[in-house]
Amino acid sequence: MSAASQARKRRSPEDLQIVAFEKGRATSYSACGVPYWISGTVACEDDLISRSPAQHRDNGIDVRTRTEVVAIDLAARTVRAREVDEHGREYDEPFDSLVYATGSVPMRPPIPGIDADGVYGVQTLDDGAALRAELDTGGVRRVVIVGGGYIGLEIAEACQIRGLDVTVIDRSRTPVGTIDPDIGAFITDAVRALGITLVLSEAVVAIETGRDGRPVAVHTDGERRLPADLVVLGLGVCPNTALAQHAGIPLGTSGGIAVDTRMRTHVEGVWAAGDCVESVHRLSGQRVVVALGTHANKQGRVAGINIGGGYATFPGVIGTAVTKVCDLEVARTGLSAAEADVAGYRYVTASVDSTTRAGYYPGAQPIRIKMLAEKRTGRLLGAQIVGREGAAKRIDVLATAIWNEMGVDEILALDLSYAPPFAPVWDPVLIAARKAFDAVEANTQV
Amino acid sequence: MSAASQARKRRSPEDLQIVAFEKGRATSYSACGVPYWISGTVACEDDLISRSPAQHRDNGIDVRTRTEVVAIDLAARTVRAREVDEHGREYDEPFDSLVYATGSVPMRPPIPGIDADGVYGVQTLDDGAALRAELDTGGVRRVVIVGGGYIGLEIAEACQIRGLDVTVIDRSRTPVGTIDPDIGAFITDAVRALGITLVLSEAVVAIETGRDGRPVAVHTDGERRLPADLVVLGLGVCPNTALAQHAGIPLGTSGGIAVDTRMRTHVEGVWAAGDCVESVHRLSGQRVVVALGTHANKQGRVAGINIGGGYATFPGVIGTAVTKVCDLEVARTGLSAAEADVAGYRYVTASVDSTTRAGYYPGAQPIRIKMLAEKRTGRLLGAQIVGREGAAKRIDVLATAIWNEMGVDEILALDLSYAPPFAPVWDPVLIAARKAFDAVEANTQV
Repeated sequence: MSAASQARKRRSPEDLQIVAFEKGRATSYSACGVPYWISGTVACEDDLISRSPAQHRDNGIDVRTRTEVVAIDLAARTVRAREVDEHGREYDEPFDSLVYATGSVPMRPPIPGIDADGVYGVQTLDDGAALRAELDTGGVRRVVIVGGGYIGLEIAEACQIRGLDVTVIDRSRTPVGTIDPDIGAFITDAVRALGITLVLSEAVVAIETGRDGRPVAVHTDGERRLPADLVVLGLGVCPNTALAQHAGIPLGTSGGIAVDTRMRTHVEGVWAAGDCVESVHRLSGQRVVVALGTHANKQGRVAGINIGGGYATFPGVIGTAVTKVCDLEVARTGLSAAEADVAGYRYVTASVDSTTRAGYYPGAQPIRIKMLAEKRTGRLLGAQIVGREGAAKRIDVLATAIWNEMGVDEILALDLSYAPPFAPVWDPVLIAARKAFDAVEANTQV
Repeated sequence: MSAASQARKRRSPEDLQIVAFEKGRATSYSACGVPYWISGTVACEDDLISRSPAQHRDNGIDVRTRTEVVAIDLAARTVRAREVDEHGREYDEPFDSLVYATGSVPMRPPIPGIDADGVYGVQTLDDGAALRAELDTGGVRRVVIVGGGYIGLEIAEACQIRGLDVTVIDRSRTPVGTIDPDIGAFITDAVRALGITLVLSEAVVAIETGRDGRPVAVHTDGERRLPADLVVLGLGVCPNTALAQHAGIPLGTSGGIAVDTRMRTHVEGVWAAGDCVESVHRLSGQRVVVALGTHANKQGRVAGINIGGGYATFPGVIGTAVTKVCDLEVARTGLSAAEADVAGYRYVTASVDSTTRAGYYPGAQPIRIKMLAEKRTGRLLGAQIVGREGAAKRIDVLATAIWNEMGVDEILALDLSYAPPFAPVWDPVLIAARKAFDAVEANTQV
């Protein structure tokens, strides 16, 4: 819908007809807000919707909800649409330009029981509505979350807030695989402090179902049997490329749709944007799929401006992310240690503990910052922050520094803001840069 | 003391003897914390001290408190020290290297009564202690603050928290002259909402004293007579260069001590750092004096590393600052509109209103961001943020962007963190950049 809105802004309905197909009921909603709606922190589904189908229609965009596109014919320049109701009426819609923005689908490993009723992915608003409806019946007591990534943990906390008995299983040593284990350990503690059972270093091998075909337990390769009335999949997502593949729109090496900087696919007149495409990682140089609303919005905007006759590009990603577990804030940007290894970098690391305000100022909260700096050059390659209130958003300073390929010595000279209610006189970001610089220097001398 | 500590880290007491003279009682304290100690938010003076004279002595630094340097003899390579007690003993101390770090002194316009007892500058911990002691007597009811800059407002709020009747006078249309009037208007409202009387667009012409020589009222050029039991000067500070000038250490065009990037003055073996020196403003190219603890600390560190045989430079400032008035947060970086005019820039401005969290997430607070972008190039020249909790620290992202000479189009592509508890999907910083970019484009077309 970002693409549609931007194209509409630049070209009138007389000049450009815009049809948008949406399988579900809603448009332009915050999928990232779903966990907070499930927990009740957000009262109402409508709060998550920033622009309804009717609003888009008022803006001259022909939104067709509950209508699934089931095939694309690139030669005929048509898409095959099917209405999602008991009639399932199908029809062809012609196009000059096509924007492929199908998002992603939850990973479903091929294990017994994975497709049972009562096993939920949480990807769309409709997924969230279905999960919430089942929780609202009151028939669920025990929830097992498979996968301790961002979404898995957010849903776990939502269920815990609802008073359910929650278990999270993750195959890694610490939850959130994109966070280094030393920082991840803080997440482990925070999740357990919430009263959530966290099973680590084990993988799910089967979902046991009862006579009604619904889950009764989850089995792990650690020989555990974890009773469950409901299972949520939090194993991450993969780009929803089935339709594109079938139509002959080329994928990239990462498995996402291949696009150029203007969000053009390799097929003339076909654009793609959002979780279904791959992006350039500016640090590793690799093509990666990063399913995040920020990128999706920017990419949609870029596609729409270009379709509208303007010029815009999407310059890639650096892996910035942030989440909250109870009052613990965790953020990262750039490369984790594991990612830096894969990319072939040699680096030093530095971790510092500080406070979010001057130590003497009421409300000062602990904050830990870890940095990875390239050996010899001192260029910042990655950063992770964990702390309490006010800690995590500092990651944006480091994301901006990485974007600009700053060295840690340059970072420590940055003119950042200071007043006792906001930071110590050396902001934690600067202290970390100082320590990372010392490590680069020490490493250069040997 | 930063310079002393860094030099000591690199050179042993056998190799380098370090003597530090301090007129007051304390070392390494947070002058910025003084208003919070006066208000009672910080309970105890000791909380403001990060390293006491005894701790420095344990580290091999010969700290001599209550000892004022009254003259510098560059030819003889000695300083003249005078003990601040009833004997006033004086002696000469020889040096090979001298670090001049005298800080700043409050501006005292030459008006009647300015030097009366009961007229306070708040610059040092001793100043703060004196002010606090007088407030603790209970004899003060009406305080008039002359000057509505950061320190003036912080002291005003501190006095208001203590239950005093507080008036602030500022000659500008809005308080904090380094903030543009449209953003400053929010400060005006916040200060008045606290119950503080704010007199704007008027200058103080006299402090009327009583028979005891103490203030009884402050007179303005608007013919006002504002009764006062105590007056605090918040007119800003000027570099404390008297000793240096007398000794023949050259000043720069701005009135601060002239130093190179390694913090060397124009006199061989004489270094300077902190509020008393001038710095390069990276945007205007001008030499400026910016009295801020962050710069002072960094400059001291640079001087100390260089004296210790290492290599470090101070690359200049971009004017980042932040403050808090009750729960209103105000931050700025780069050039204000007035400063950009003086520097000769042509620019467009854009202001946006957004929220600190996703709009639907509890605790979302309003935030307004104003940006100045250079005409044609779109380079970000300045930014100001005003908002409630969680708003102001976002200025650091824009400070980092300005440091790297980013254009607003580049900023809007930045990979900043997003999750509903921390930001809308388009962080307010990105929304502002988008609007500023639109303004640059529109301005280029005409």
